[in-house]
Amino acid sequence: METLKVIKIGGNIIDDEAALDAFLSEFSKIKSPKLLVHGGGKLATQLSKQMNVEVKMVDGRRVTDQDTLDIITMVYAGKINKQIVAKLQSKQCNALGFTGADGNSIVSDKRPVKTIDYGFVGDVKHVNPAVLNLLLENGITPVFCAITHDEKGQLLNTNADTIASELAIGLASFYQTELYYCFEKNGVLQDINDDNSVIEHINTTAYEKLVEDGIISDGMLPKLNNCFHAIQKNVKKVCIGKPEMLFDASSKFTTITAD
Amino acid sequence: METLKVIKIGGNIIDDEAALDAFLSEFSKIKSPKLLVHGGGKLATQLSKQMNVEVKMVDGRRVTDQDTLDIITMVYAGKINKQIVAKLQSKQCNALGFTGADGNSIVSDKRPVKTIDYGFVGDVKHVNPAVLNLLLENGITPVFCAITHDEKGQLLNTNADTIASELAIGLASFYQTELYYCFEKNGVLQDINDDNSVIEHINTTAYEKLVEDGIISDGMLPKLNNCFHAIQKNVKKVCIGKPEMLFDASSKFTTITAD
Repeated sequence: METLKVIKIGGNIIDDEAALDAFLSEFSKIKSPKLLVHGGGKLATQLSKQMNVEVKMVDGRRVTDQDTLDIITMVYAGKINKQIVAKLQSKQCNALGFTGADGNSIVSDKRPVKTIDYGFVGDVKHVNPAVLNLLLENGITPVFCAITHDEKGQLLNTNADTIASELAIGLASFYQTELYYCFEKNGVLQDINDDNSVIEHINTTAYEKLVEDGIISDGMLPKLNNCFHAIQKNVKKVCIGKPEMLFDASSKFTTITAD
Repeated sequence: METLKVIKIGGNIIDDEAALDAFLSEFSKIKSPKLLVHGGGKLATQLSKQMNVEVKMVDGRRVTDQDTLDIITMVYAGKINKQIVAKLQSKQCNALGFTGADGNSIVSDKRPVKTIDYGFVGDVKHVNPAVLNLLLENGITPVFCAITHDEKGQLLNTNADTIASELAIGLASFYQTELYYCFEKNGVLQDINDDNSVIEHINTTAYEKLVEDGIISDGMLPKLNNCFHAIQKNVKKVCIGKPEMLFDASSKFTTITAD
């Protein structure tokens, strides 16, 4: 099976025009089939302020009321997604922008209200890989923003890390999928204050020990749970680190595999 | 050859939630391959006001500076396009949203500055129909907003009527294309004050006479020039009228053919 790279970039790249441009130049040179997932960065919060829409966060997650959903749809699916698509086209990468509603590619359930009502937030139910596979087979690069839908006409704000892992899982029947999470650190660090203390390889056994020892905690826990979820569902490997991990053979980053 | 219906809707439908929903319900029932092009409606102007971005119009055309382009991209490609796609999905129509940058489907030139600088406005250079044809063949319905690109990374605000006609022309080598312009009148009217005075058929000869007699003037002239341009470029027929023309066999509208 051919290899498909599913690559997720976050706000640290999106909010920095030069970094984004440099990343997209390298990304466009990747020869194997590829798929990009982008987060939202600071633009949605900026626009909310300009429009006097209150930004509500609970446990680091955005509460998405109707106004916030409109803003997110405008910023993620509109401005950011289309600017990335146009830039990739200028770099000879034939990109095509997606939300989960497009081609019915990612179906979510609106998160049930327990103690907190997150509003229009979606938990991914399933991926329909047919349209994506059709495009990938024809040299097209899908570019996803972090929005899905419920098949009943409702758009839903959805975690970009989850979208990336679910896409890698959903396409694993057509491709040997590799998942790359680009973020601001060099990977999982032995010492959180030393960016050179990268743990280069983590398997399931090592992971359990790292959690037990408190090396992996806080923000990294949900990220790594996402990674191992993908590994358990036939994704071949997951890499976490700075974007250089994709292009620079000498860079250090964390690779996660089943064993 | 199979028939492809290219349908353009404007602000009068987009700004009216009930009218849009009713239209999309009927649209989703069309059995032949189909493609939707939507204008922007009043939302972009509303958002410009909310964000204190001045709206500049010259001869009924929006002057598109960087802030205005951002707003248009957010509103057209973000909010409106994705809401339409999600609604179509809920009606079992497998829609996929497009700007001209997506799949490199419509390439434009930035309009040269003569006496007026329209800013980031694009005049369509060519359509690349391959990706659209691939999707249409697989039962996907492309949904276009009125944005194109220049292949150099620049998004460009582009007239929605032109996008519809260029797509109908560009896909005429794969399909027998029919172009439908939905607007607020029943078609080309003999008497502009009588909505029942529809001229049901116009060919090239009749058109020249109608322009000579001053029956077709003002806003209808560019619209009809677009229609005849399409007809000259292998589009089989062009229809102008209320959206009912697509669904109600008893409705009256104007059909334009070469002869």
